Amino acid sequence: MTRKVISYKDGHVYEFAPNMEPIYTAKDGESITFETIDSLNKAVQSDSDLMDAIPEEVNAATGPVAVEGATPGDVLKVEIEDVRLNEEQGRVITAPEFGLLQDHEDIEHPATRVTEITKGSESLLFKDLEVPINPIIGTIGVATSEETITTLIPHNHGGNLDTTDMTTGTIAYFPVFQEGAMLAMGDSKAAMADGEMCGTGAEIGTDIDVTVSVIKDAAVDLERPLVDTGDAWKTIASAETMEDAVEMANEDLIKLLALEHDYSLTDAYLFSSLVGGLEISQVVDPLVTARNSVPSEYFSDPF
Amino acid sequence: MTRKVISYKDGHVYEFAPNMEPIYTAKDGESITFETIDSLNKAVQSDSDLMDAIPEEVNAATGPVAVEGATPGDVLKVEIEDVRLNEEQGRVITAPEFGLLQDHEDIEHPATRVTEITKGSESLLFKDLEVPINPIIGTIGVATSEETITTLIPHNHGGNLDTTDMTTGTIAYFPVFQEGAMLAMGDSKAAMADGEMCGTGAEIGTDIDVTVSVIKDAAVDLERPLVDTGDAWKTIASAETMEDAVEMANEDLIKLLALEHDYSLTDAYLFSSLVGGLEISQVVDPLVTARNSVPSEYFSDPF
Repeated sequence: MTRKVISYKDGHVYEFAPNMEPIYTAKDGESITFETIDSLNKAVQSDSDLMDAIPEEVNAATGPVAVEGATPGDVLKVEIEDVRLNEEQGRVITAPEFGLLQDHEDIEHPATRVTEITKGSESLLFKDLEVPINPIIGTIGVATSEETITTLIPHNHGGNLDTTDMTTGTIAYFPVFQEGAMLAMGDSKAAMADGEMCGTGAEIGTDIDVTVSVIKDAAVDLERPLVDTGDAWKTIASAETMEDAVEMANEDLIKLLALEHDYSLTDAYLFSSLVGGLEISQVVDPLVTARNSVPSEYFSDPF
Repeated sequence: MTRKVISYKDGHVYEFAPNMEPIYTAKDGESITFETIDSLNKAVQSDSDLMDAIPEEVNAATGPVAVEGATPGDVLKVEIEDVRLNEEQGRVITAPEFGLLQDHEDIEHPATRVTEITKGSESLLFKDLEVPINPIIGTIGVATSEETITTLIPHNHGGNLDTTDMTTGTIAYFPVFQEGAMLAMGDSKAAMADGEMCGTGAEIGTDIDVTVSVIKDAAVDLERPLVDTGDAWKTIASAETMEDAVEMANEDLIKLLALEHDYSLTDAYLFSSLVGGLEISQVVDPLVTARNSVPSEYFSDPF
C-alpha cells in the first residue's frame, strides 16, 4: 500500500475542538505522512521579517486525520517514525508580549534570526554557531472533550505541547475524546531548548512519518498525553503555573508506577523522588507544560 | 601534605549567615574532605521512624571552612572530586506539610522507607527495585551577603539547592560575599530525582573530596551559583515561584552567552532557545530552584 501523504495544503486547523471534520480517514495501524508548514505560515523568510504580534492564526496543524475504530475512552497510539525538514531554513523570533523575558528592556521585541540548514541537514547556523538538528513536533493532538482550544495552547488533548520528546523514535499516546480521535500536527522546530524561552525554536516545515493505532480497553485511564522515548516514559501536563503542571505530571506518574509495581501511592510517590524526575517542556505558551520522567527499566507499556 | 578531613563532629551549621566562624582555614588551592551527616541527623534508622514535622534543625552543613584570600567580589571555585557514601542505608520520607503532593489524601504523611545500599555501593534498594547510586550534595553554599538563611532554604549563596549536578566531577562556582567565603555542605542523597517531589531523596551521610580555590578579578559578575558538569554549564537560581526561578536562570545564562560570543542580549536569548534548556532542581523547599543549561561546546570557562 502506498503511504498516504496528508499535506497542510489539503487541510489544516488552528483549533482543536470537539467537532472536527477529518480530511482523511486512516485505518487502524496505517502508516501515513503529515506534511506541515512552519508555525508562522511562511511569513518570516529573512531577518527583516519581524512579527509585531503573535498572529491569531498560528501553529497550523495539518489534519485532522480520523482513525477508524477510535471511540471515546480509547487511547490513540502514534509512533513517530521520522521527522524530516522540508525546507532549507528555520527562523527563531521574539514578538511583543511573548516569551519568558518579554519585559527585559535590553532585548528586542520583535526580532528575527533566520537559521540556515547546512548541507546534509545535520546542523543549522545561528550566526556563527552550528546547532545540531533535532526536529521536533511542537503541536500535536486530538479532538478535545468539550472546549475549543487554539493551536497556541496545550492541554489534555495535546496541542501546543512544545515538548522536545515529540521526535523521531518516540511513541506518543493520547486519550481519545471523540469518534475517530482526529489527529493533527504541525509547528515543528529544527531545534529547540527545553523551555522554549524566547517563545520559539527554529520554526520550520517538516514531513512526519507516523503509524497510528487504536488501543481498546486500556488498563490505564489516560487523561493526558504520555510518551515512550525508548529510554524513558514521561507524563506530560499543562497548567497555568509550573507548580500546577509539575503536580499533575507527578500525580499521573505515580498512578502509573503504583499500577506497574503494585505499590501504594505513597510508595510510588517516594520512589518517584529517586529516579528520573521533573522536566520542563515550555514556559511561554498561555498554559505551561512540564513532564515527569521515569527510566524505562522501571516501567513497561501500561496498555 | 595530608588531606585535611573536616567532620560534622568538628562543626556544622543550620544557617548560612554574613558572620560565620570557620572551623578550619584552607589554603587557596587546598584539597580537603568534608564528612557529612544525613539531613535528618540520624533520627530515621528504620521504616517506623516517622517525621511528624520537618525539624527546625535540618540539613546540618559541615563547616564552615574559610578559604585564605577570598574576599567579597571574588568567586569561590569548588572542584567536587568525589562524593562517597559513609553509611550503609539511606532514607526517603514524607512529612506533614512538606512535599509536592502534601495535600494528596491517599498519600501518607508521615511515611519512611529505608533504602539499603547493596554490596559494592552501586545501587540501593527501594522495596524490590534497585536504584543506581548517584551521590549528590543537597546543601552547599557560602556565607550570605546580608540575611541569615537556614540550611533548608536555597538562595544566591547556594544553600539547599538540591541540585543533582552537585556531584562527582562537577566544578561549582559561588559568589564570595564575606572574607574567607565560608564554605559548608551537607544534606547528601544517595539518589534523587530532579524535582525531589516527596521532599527528600535517599538521605545519607557522605565524605566529599573537594579542592577549593579563589578566583580574583573575574570578568563575570557572578550573582548566584554556577556549575560546570563537564558536559554543560548551568546557571542555578532560586525564587518563590518556578516562573521567577527560570526567568532568573535564563537571564543569568544569556548574560554569560553574550559575553562569550560577543552577542547582543537579544541574540543570546534567541540562541538560548535552541540548545540545552531549562531544568528543575527542586520544587519542594521554601524557595524552588531551577537551572538553565548550555552544552559545553558553546561555552568556555568565563573566569
